[in-house]
Amino acid sequence: MRLPHVPLDEVEDVHVGLIGIPWDGGTTNRAGARHGPRQIRDLSTLMRNVHHVTGVKPFDLANCADLGDTPVNPIDLHDTIARIEAFFRDVHAAGIVPLSAGGDHLVTLPIMRAIARAQPVGMVHFDAHTDTNDRYFGEHKLTHGTPFRRAIEEGLLDPKRTVQIGIRGSLYTSHDMDWGYEQGIRVIQIEEFFDLGVEAVIAEARRVVGDGPTYISFDVDGLDPVYAPGTGTPEIGGFSTHDAQRMIRGLRGVNLVGGDVVEVAPPFDPSGATALVGATIMYEILCLLTEVVAKR
Amino acid sequence: MRLPHVPLDEVEDVHVGLIGIPWDGGTTNRAGARHGPRQIRDLSTLMRNVHHVTGVKPFDLANCADLGDTPVNPIDLHDTIARIEAFFRDVHAAGIVPLSAGGDHLVTLPIMRAIARAQPVGMVHFDAHTDTNDRYFGEHKLTHGTPFRRAIEEGLLDPKRTVQIGIRGSLYTSHDMDWGYEQGIRVIQIEEFFDLGVEAVIAEARRVVGDGPTYISFDVDGLDPVYAPGTGTPEIGGFSTHDAQRMIRGLRGVNLVGGDVVEVAPPFDPSGATALVGATIMYEILCLLTEVVAKR
Amino acid sequence: MRLPHVPLDEVEDVHVGLIGIPWDGGTTNRAGARHGPRQIRDLSTLMRNVHHVTGVKPFDLANCADLGDTPVNPIDLHDTIARIEAFFRDVHAAGIVPLSAGGDHLVTLPIMRAIARAQPVGMVHFDAHTDTNDRYFGEHKLTHGTPFRRAIEEGLLDPKRTVQIGIRGSLYTSHDMDWGYEQGIRVIQIEEFFDLGVEAVIAEARRVVGDGPTYISFDVDGLDPVYAPGTGTPEIGGFSTHDAQRMIRGLRGVNLVGGDVVEVAPPFDPSGATALVGATIMYEILCLLTEVVAKR
Amino acid sequence: MRLPHVPLDEVEDVHVGLIGIPWDGGTTNRAGARHGPRQIRDLSTLMRNVHHVTGVKPFDLANCADLGDTPVNPIDLHDTIARIEAFFRDVHAAGIVPLSAGGDHLVTLPIMRAIARAQPVGMVHFDAHTDTNDRYFGEHKLTHGTPFRRAIEEGLLDPKRTVQIGIRGSLYTSHDMDWGYEQGIRVIQIEEFFDLGVEAVIAEARRVVGDGPTYISFDVDGLDPVYAPGTGTPEIGGFSTHDAQRMIRGLRGVNLVGGDVVEVAPPFDPSGATALVGATIMYEILCLLTEVVAKR
Amino acid sequence: MRLPHVPLDEVEDVHVGLIGIPWDGGTTNRAGARHGPRQIRDLSTLMRNVHHVTGVKPFDLANCADLGDTPVNPIDLHDTIARIEAFFRDVHAAGIVPLSAGGDHLVTLPIMRAIARAQPVGMVHFDAHTDTNDRYFGEHKLTHGTPFRRAIEEGLLDPKRTVQIGIRGSLYTSHDMDWGYEQGIRVIQIEEFFDLGVEAVIAEARRVVGDGPTYISFDVDGLDPVYAPGTGTPEIGGFSTHDAQRMIRGLRGVNLVGGDVVEVAPPFDPSGATALVGATIMYEILCLLTEVVAKR
Amino acid sequence: MRLPHVPLDEVEDVHVGLIGIPWDGGTTNRAGARHGPRQIRDLSTLMRNVHHVTGVKPFDLANCADLGDTPVNPIDLHDTIARIEAFFRDVHAAGIVPLSAGGDHLVTLPIMRAIARAQPVGMVHFDAHTDTNDRYFGEHKLTHGTPFRRAIEEGLLDPKRTVQIGIRGSLYTSHDMDWGYEQGIRVIQIEEFFDLGVEAVIAEARRVVGDGPTYISFDVDGLDPVYAPGTGTPEIGGFSTHDAQRMIRGLRGVNLVGGDVVEVAPPFDPSGATALVGATIMYEILCLLTEVVAKR
Repeated sequence: MRLPHVPLDEVEDVHVGLIGIPWDGGTTNRAGARHGPRQIRDLSTLMRNVHHVTGVKPFDLANCADLGDTPVNPIDLHDTIARIEAFFRDVHAAGIVPLSAGGDHLVTLPIMRAIARAQPVGMVHFDAHTDTNDRYFGEHKLTHGTPFRRAIEEGLLDPKRTVQIGIRGSLYTSHDMDWGYEQGIRVIQIEEFFDLGVEAVIAEARRVVGDGPTYISFDVDGLDPVYAPGTGTPEIGGFSTHDAQRMIRGLRGVNLVGGDVVEVAPPFDPSGATALVGATIMYEILCLLTEVVAKR
Repeated sequence: MRLPHVPLDEVEDVHVGLIGIPWDGGTTNRAGARHGPRQIRDLSTLMRNVHHVTGVKPFDLANCADLGDTPVNPIDLHDTIARIEAFFRDVHAAGIVPLSAGGDHLVTLPIMRAIARAQPVGMVHFDAHTDTNDRYFGEHKLTHGTPFRRAIEEGLLDPKRTVQIGIRGSLYTSHDMDWGYEQGIRVIQIEEFFDLGVEAVIAEARRVVGDGPTYISFDVDGLDPVYAPGTGTPEIGGFSTHDAQRMIRGLRGVNLVGGDVVEVAPPFDPSGATALVGATIMYEILCLLTEVVAKR
Repeated sequence: MRLPHVPLDEVEDVHVGLIGIPWDGGTTNRAGARHGPRQIRDLSTLMRNVHHVTGVKPFDLANCADLGDTPVNPIDLHDTIARIEAFFRDVHAAGIVPLSAGGDHLVTLPIMRAIARAQPVGMVHFDAHTDTNDRYFGEHKLTHGTPFRRAIEEGLLDPKRTVQIGIRGSLYTSHDMDWGYEQGIRVIQIEEFFDLGVEAVIAEARRVVGDGPTYISFDVDGLDPVYAPGTGTPEIGGFSTHDAQRMIRGLRGVNLVGGDVVEVAPPFDPSGATALVGATIMYEILCLLTEVVAKR
Repeated sequence: MRLPHVPLDEVEDVHVGLIGIPWDGGTTNRAGARHGPRQIRDLSTLMRNVHHVTGVKPFDLANCADLGDTPVNPIDLHDTIARIEAFFRDVHAAGIVPLSAGGDHLVTLPIMRAIARAQPVGMVHFDAHTDTNDRYFGEHKLTHGTPFRRAIEEGLLDPKRTVQIGIRGSLYTSHDMDWGYEQGIRVIQIEEFFDLGVEAVIAEARRVVGDGPTYISFDVDGLDPVYAPGTGTPEIGGFSTHDAQRMIRGLRGVNLVGGDVVEVAPPFDPSGATALVGATIMYEILCLLTEVVAKR
Repeated sequence: MRLPHVPLDEVEDVHVGLIGIPWDGGTTNRAGARHGPRQIRDLSTLMRNVHHVTGVKPFDLANCADLGDTPVNPIDLHDTIARIEAFFRDVHAAGIVPLSAGGDHLVTLPIMRAIARAQPVGMVHFDAHTDTNDRYFGEHKLTHGTPFRRAIEEGLLDPKRTVQIGIRGSLYTSHDMDWGYEQGIRVIQIEEFFDLGVEAVIAEARRVVGDGPTYISFDVDGLDPVYAPGTGTPEIGGFSTHDAQRMIRGLRGVNLVGGDVVEVAPPFDPSGATALVGATIMYEILCLLTEVVAKR
Repeated sequence: MRLPHVPLDEVEDVHVGLIGIPWDGGTTNRAGARHGPRQIRDLSTLMRNVHHVTGVKPFDLANCADLGDTPVNPIDLHDTIARIEAFFRDVHAAGIVPLSAGGDHLVTLPIMRAIARAQPVGMVHFDAHTDTNDRYFGEHKLTHGTPFRRAIEEGLLDPKRTVQIGIRGSLYTSHDMDWGYEQGIRVIQIEEFFDLGVEAVIAEARRVVGDGPTYISFDVDGLDPVYAPGTGTPEIGGFSTHDAQRMIRGLRGVNLVGGDVVEVAPPFDPSGATALVGATIMYEILCLLTEVVAKR
């Protein structure tokens, strides 16, 4: 978004930090999200100063900076998770609200480890998948299909203040989603989404997260694949970008502590259309975050 | 769908057979549907065991097998039609309900010749085109624009139990659709589709086909081209994949005897998005077919 | 549309002329619309004789001809504008109603200079952008972001009879749109579009333009980018092709004096999908124009 | 090549005719060559007036015209072959030397039937495949793999004055090429091509065809697929475009009676690179043909 | 190659086994090689029965079977390496000569662990990179840049019988290649390759590997990127597919014990051209392997 | 190349400056080179520290910095030329040797205006076109086809010390190249290039430019289009990237004062392959420039 690049060790008086996480080592099927941050950055140059609906001027409301990419280790999952967490601990310690571009969805886990130790967060989660599976390939508990199971187990994420929107797609077993329901997660499958309509979904999401600290996690595969073909696990029949924009705008005033846009995989969309969507969604979230910061 | 491949001469105790028909010799404009079955097979590996809305477990309800591709002859239309019919006669004789991946839309004719000789079938037909033209290029009566004219003339398809959904696009003459109306086909043009809404369209389709044996034929060009760019005769302004999924689910309990998904043409969509749509629609139809089979 | 190509100096008894303007010198970001006319012509061969909803037969109602491409000068903006205007003056003098394929949106200015000198026109304008900016890069008053500012200043376009549909996207300043509002332009931003619905938008557009001479200008970036990826300035969250078709059909009977489809940029969509959309929209407008001509 | 389009029934005083044959019904694997003529025409606008090496000015040496496309019937092979032959009989009767853009390679057979009835022709044939198979799929004797077997059997092509350059690729049986050798065809497989070098290959080709009437047939799959990815049966390891240009220029002065460029299949190369190659090769052949015509 | 698929536990009397390794967890930059085996299998259907230059009929010389894909674990490198090794141990124990399709280049290490424990192998290695680095990202010793360092350290690969052909590209330090030279590896950088010519390179390779057991490892990035765009680490300026074919054919009679083709990454070449190259190179190697097996 | 970005007004002690010129307003056919600098920058991250053949370590030999992009004005050619010249005057005044990424070829003119006022430069010019035309579209003397005519007329470029390598393609008239020959330019058409071989071409180029100050201008369309499909005016039959690398390395020790790589047009090659070529060629030139600087 044409923001100055500020290395983390030179940060001073930054309120909202944009951060890339070029890593997809948690991906079980089609990798490529490691290239997401670069292409999102490229396309973000199309963003302008004023939000055309809300009138918010994010760059006036708060000091925003591009904090660059986190360190990663493409061949060691556990090392990468640790590096990402360490980076976000520094961000958090500097009082910066993070807005991140993934990377695959597992990256949200170390972010939460860095910012939600003191108090669990609620979450508005846009996705085709619940990402609350227990394990893959036998004993493996850290993949892009498991971050929120881990986050809940570790007390970082409050399931009763979590809403998942856009869930769909065939299941491995009839019990895939039982665990989430038992924890109290509010799941709005895509069928219910279309039945309720955008306004009612917004109201329900606000009801679930309430006044507590809340995180927004936006997996682009929540969108219909025609809006985001460049992703690793597309599921047909999702919501539109316009729906997504409306929903995010509907979260104005929620007590937000951070957000991310994940699973943009440029190799599957060299045209850059998916990254443009990712950049625009980040801009929408940025408008919310800067309003929150400005009110403090 | 990761099913075992069972050659037709080794078939035993199979209830639903998935069949590829790699042929597009009936195509008048952009060929390429001959490559459809392979790419649909590739993408079908993304399908899982349980339908997330209906809870149907197709592979538990019935023995499903991939019967491979029918023989074809890319340079002889009539020979190919005969080979396809012979293949499906064997399938039918073995008591297997066929679910096919085309190929262009002409392939539905030899399928009907194989399975509807004894009793004409009704049909729920999703398409941008009625495919009830009489002839092309003078005397040619077998093309992908004519199968249902032939099927009705041959007494295989009951026009009064036929509903066509999504029809649109400019016409050759004002009378292109007269013949179909005269036969009693219920045509729901795309404008009426949007006016009625999905639920009313489902009700109307169920009313038309009633209790008799019914076939589902899904031409991916019924979808808007943004959902299925890989097809030979795209027409802008169609329904969405979500609409399609809802309509197919709305046909639960109908007396189905087979189905097909046709006109997936990979050369016009190397990304595989159209084939993913085709595979998912086949999965939706498979859930219906296995429920029917299980109730027998 | 398989029409005869008639060079302008051989024109005789032509009522509606289709014209290409292969030029994008007014583009500030991603050029490529200069290649639009050729690809739109290619895809227009898919159009047939009868409109499937209105039953209009445009080629029976009026003599239509492809007048070829206007002369342009790819390295001189002012010379090109003059050449285009001269071409359209000849078209206008010959009593031909022009329907043009751009080219970037600046091309509409010389068209209006040629056909609206005697009396200002009203306009139904489909676009993501208002194109009423004052200047770019300091002193430059002629770009694809400024044509309608210039047209209003020159008395060619009546702002009180102008409606803009689909406007969206972040702004440079909070005042970007003030000038347009002050002139009395009726702006229907995309959010209002979705709130009102297509029918109400049509009614509002008809109210604004009234009975006076009216021009239709259709920028393909008004559509959501999934319907028109091949364009220079995509903005996510637009209307669909079906919405667009309905709106244009809703303008039947309006006193139309010309139209254009602009900003189709094939380099960003080699598949031709965007050009197919452009060709189909031109066909929809052609049906309107030939009805107007036939009534005279 | 920006030539005037002259319908065949208005032809007068044309020496060399460029003809499109939009048909691929003889293709056994990946169809798409039916779209070749249009894209070759598009790209041919990049050709200029003077050959930069030989200095030949083809449009000065002879009257050249674009005779349009032959009629075809996409769903009937035999009818199409007859239509093409009839078209070329008229061309031949009008004294026009034909230069054609295919279409698949079977189209060369009806061309030869039209122009070589009186006297068999020799041929310089660039290709990865000999196209002298006997039959496919049992009894089918007309496919894009058999034209030259048929042409030799029918006495249209003199095998002893035929040279095939660039042949390669694995074989169905050890005897695939025996028939050609028995007829006396001079086959220069790609390995021999690289061993001999371009100059020696030219000399050998000139020796084989001698002074008699000779046809040039250029299948773009003779080129390495990196130069011509848009084709139906690519074989890795071919010659380069520069090699091809040198070889064609090396045929200056040969007694040429026609030529063609076949198997350009745009769906497999939407970028148009293959069609640019096709157009440039046609330009090279055109320079030869106009020199021959000018000397008569 | 249209071979029967034989699961490893049903193997009987198979001489040469084709094996896919769908894994790219050792990739440090652009992943995607995990999808290589599927696309290579698709394109391998274009291979026919007889080699057109050597006349070898591989499927007559030896029983060949497609043994399917090895098990992998996309999120655990060490577990995957162990699974691959176990698979190849079974293959080796069954007396089958393996010919594998990667996957990234790290997969060659577990193959060697399975087949070269008893006696180290020599290697003809085609690649742009030596893959003999020590470690990446600090302590990580297993990546696609290190397999041959490990193999030499473990006594599986004899450096004095190893030749690397096509090496190029800028280096991290001046000492990147020192270790390899010290071990005695014969490195033929691309500049030397072009200076020597194919025949001399073949002679040198044969001299280096001698009569001992030898493995062929073909990384497609050894080719110039125009021949193999679908790969993770392209380096401009490589050899051609024709060069590669000649070199492999030049290894006839060498005492081969296995081979692989690696780093085909379909996401970076959806056209399939790179996979066609991969399949053809596998076919060339297969001809060698079956000759070796037949002579035993 | 992962270099620090140093704004021009903060420059201090920089020896070689990398500069982007995002502009293509001089392009007469297919625009898109304005996006070249960004994609070249992206791909340049693949360059490493040491040249693998010459052993040169450019970043050790000289202080290198990325000076960012020059200002441009996409809708005003003359203003842009002035802005570029002003930028390069500052660069030159700061004692920095410029290495630029275009942009279309017209950008070389303002660079020469900035650095060659005091003394004309010689030039090694790689290109398919001479770019010494006089004018286009009547009176227009500034396009990407005319820069070197202007530079010679203005006394910036010494034609007798200019060599053009790779020239080819059909001509507008027989006299297109006369002017260049009259000035004494040494033109090595592609045919002569292949006849001479790379070593002789290097010797000839060194002879022509001699010891005087010399500029390298590399238009990627000099390469065969298979190596650089992403360009505006492709001409088949060019040299390879390996040839280009050898020629540039052959210029070691020439008295170089700057260089550029132009006409990389990403819209025509979204894969980035052409930009990778551009980045690698820049790296090759950088190695030369840093050696020259280090010797001063």
